[in-house]
Amino acid sequence: MGMTMIEKIIAAHTEHDELKPGQIVNAEVDIVLGNDITTPVAIEEFNKIGVETVFDKDRVVIVPDHFAPSKDIQAAEQVKMLREFARKHELTNFFEIGQMGIEHVLLPEKGLALPGEIIVGADSHTCTYGALGALGTGVGSTDMAAAMATGKTWFKVPPTIKFVYTGELQPWVSGKDLILYTIGKIGVDGALYKAMEFTGEAISNLSMDGRMTMSNMAIEAGGKAGLIEADDKTIEYLKDRAVRDYTIYKSDEDAEYEEVIEIDVSKIEPQVAFPSLPDNTRGVSEAGEVKIHQSVIGSCTNGRIEDLRAAAKILEGNKIHPDVRCLIFPGTQDIYKQAVNEGLVEIFIDAGAAFSTPTCGPCLGGHMGILAEGERAISTTNRNFVGRMGSPQSEVYLASPAVAAASAVKGSIAAPEEVIK
Amino acid sequence: MGMTMIEKIIAAHTEHDELKPGQIVNAEVDIVLGNDITTPVAIEEFNKIGVETVFDKDRVVIVPDHFAPSKDIQAAEQVKMLREFARKHELTNFFEIGQMGIEHVLLPEKGLALPGEIIVGADSHTCTYGALGALGTGVGSTDMAAAMATGKTWFKVPPTIKFVYTGELQPWVSGKDLILYTIGKIGVDGALYKAMEFTGEAISNLSMDGRMTMSNMAIEAGGKAGLIEADDKTIEYLKDRAVRDYTIYKSDEDAEYEEVIEIDVSKIEPQVAFPSLPDNTRGVSEAGEVKIHQSVIGSCTNGRIEDLRAAAKILEGNKIHPDVRCLIFPGTQDIYKQAVNEGLVEIFIDAGAAFSTPTCGPCLGGHMGILAEGERAISTTNRNFVGRMGSPQSEVYLASPAVAAASAVKGSIAAPEEVIK
Repeated sequence: MGMTMIEKIIAAHTEHDELKPGQIVNAEVDIVLGNDITTPVAIEEFNKIGVETVFDKDRVVIVPDHFAPSKDIQAAEQVKMLREFARKHELTNFFEIGQMGIEHVLLPEKGLALPGEIIVGADSHTCTYGALGALGTGVGSTDMAAAMATGKTWFKVPPTIKFVYTGELQPWVSGKDLILYTIGKIGVDGALYKAMEFTGEAISNLSMDGRMTMSNMAIEAGGKAGLIEADDKTIEYLKDRAVRDYTIYKSDEDAEYEEVIEIDVSKIEPQVAFPSLPDNTRGVSEAGEVKIHQSVIGSCTNGRIEDLRAAAKILEGNKIHPDVRCLIFPGTQDIYKQAVNEGLVEIFIDAGAAFSTPTCGPCLGGHMGILAEGERAISTTNRNFVGRMGSPQSEVYLASPAVAAASAVKGSIAAPEEVIK
Repeated sequence: MGMTMIEKIIAAHTEHDELKPGQIVNAEVDIVLGNDITTPVAIEEFNKIGVETVFDKDRVVIVPDHFAPSKDIQAAEQVKMLREFARKHELTNFFEIGQMGIEHVLLPEKGLALPGEIIVGADSHTCTYGALGALGTGVGSTDMAAAMATGKTWFKVPPTIKFVYTGELQPWVSGKDLILYTIGKIGVDGALYKAMEFTGEAISNLSMDGRMTMSNMAIEAGGKAGLIEADDKTIEYLKDRAVRDYTIYKSDEDAEYEEVIEIDVSKIEPQVAFPSLPDNTRGVSEAGEVKIHQSVIGSCTNGRIEDLRAAAKILEGNKIHPDVRCLIFPGTQDIYKQAVNEGLVEIFIDAGAAFSTPTCGPCLGGHMGILAEGERAISTTNRNFVGRMGSPQSEVYLASPAVAAASAVKGSIAAPEEVIK
């Protein structure tokens, strides 16, 4: 019997040759990741373990991105703690404020997350690295601490659901729409503690940016990981980035899947997830009249250059609706610079949008665009839970950058075709 | 006996032909200004007055800039209140988040603050408009409410101290250095409830941006206003901006000054105000070894294009010191766009600085760069009081953009010449 990608990746990090879903194993990890919210707790736990230093100073990555630049004294104290920890243990990958970006956009960009690797991060969207054929998965701060100390963590090998995306994408339909549609189809617990494997011609045709958006949201269906087989696009993407050699693992033809779900993408239109769960999706044409107050474009889900280009295409020659503020966050400093050089930032400013330095910002209700009572946002982020972006009486609608930009112009949820000039 | 500028400006807004210091008068105002911190209180007071609407919908200006984009739910609720007030009273000058800037950079840029006018703002740095030959002065929220309702406010006519700046500026010496030097000379109460009038060849030679920096900090010497006679540069600056006609008032030759202070600017080097008062100044060459953790470039004091150009000149080809985060805030969206087009933003990102959307941000400890205990910032802002930028155990050193940028590169307080490439 063959093995799935994730079974092979986990096996390669243990002494097992074969693994089956349900087995519990201790596995080596390639990268341990933390941010400014989760790492302080991990450091406290790490200090209790009593080891002298981290397992590998090149493989513990710390990115202060959630409340950065520091929103208050507490946030400043937390980043200070990370900074001092990074100095003490001579970490090569502490990304200082201003020289950084959002963790899950930054690591692939810097070639720090590679095919066949295991990346554990004290952040639920660590599943993003599945887009590179890696097992990226979120862990708690205590597991992060143990992994920093030992370079290992435990896994219960998850079963895999295979998704086969056939057909060609309609105009303005992106990776975000595919994953929202998928979550809408299987529900927020549809892949609970299971690996999702995204396959098919529509995935092959998808850009790396689009793939990362899809894998990023695997957790929103409960997925342990959201894997995409590394292909020529992946290799090309990593050519001048990868900081280490890597191995590509592919699911065997006769691998055992718990389920195979086929989706004909040619029938999918741009999607919107209504409050207050990511699976509450419908096509934008069925959104009805939903007035919005804020449009957020960015985050670890959709803060990549392709996302900014899509937003710019919509916003060029248009003006943000007077009742809407539009906040755009590039994922990293490199993407920021590219957006400057491609003329996107000028388009955003001319349209009346705010273009910020990279930060997780409003996505998790952190800062830089919090909602008041009764306000509604459309957002390219990954969660629309009650109160996620501010007041418990506010609402978040999830969509692609194109739909978020179009809605910012119209003042209510809109399809790109409605406003593009 | 002749009159000073400020006496003439106040008189022109009353029925008096002549005024003397000490007289209390009721004067018409041209602009009433508020921000997201002060306006909510003003609105509550305004609603108690019982008038139907504001005295003039074109002359009440509201700019949410302090905690914007909203840092938390409370900030969001405050801006929502402003927005609803602006809609209700059909204000033409409510500047929405993303389409805005920092109030005291924005108003001159939009031609909303003009020579000879009286601008009262519920913000202490309203004195910035003195650079245009206007009487700009800070008022409390209650006075703002009354002025919104009646278009009038009361003044006790202040005496004037005349400052005569002679000689030529040394390289890297800017308006910021002149005003820091001046405050250092007379103290933080040296002009308490007095008008400061900045004159002399060094002022004539100063750019509008440099003049606004000087007038902006008049309040840091206790000044009611910091006036500069409108000249050809002022007229040129306002040519395509002024939204109204305006009158230029000049002090008479025989005007009575309380004091005349002469300063030879050729002997002044770049200045640094040490903690914890703006008058604790010394030349940068006498700063000694002061390690810094953060460098802030921006604010209503130094967030103009000339400030960003100076910072870029220093940062070009340099890297921010690894122990420092450098945060740069343009004053307005127009300045942001200009900085993009002049290649400054690219220089900042290459140097490893964060370039943000306009906000008051860390200046007043609001958000976007708050200091932890034991941290030190050099900052182009206007106040270095205890805890101003975060922890009560943090410190702020005030300086020009050139010195702040040089210090960001060196990691300790530095003169521009030490690092420029």
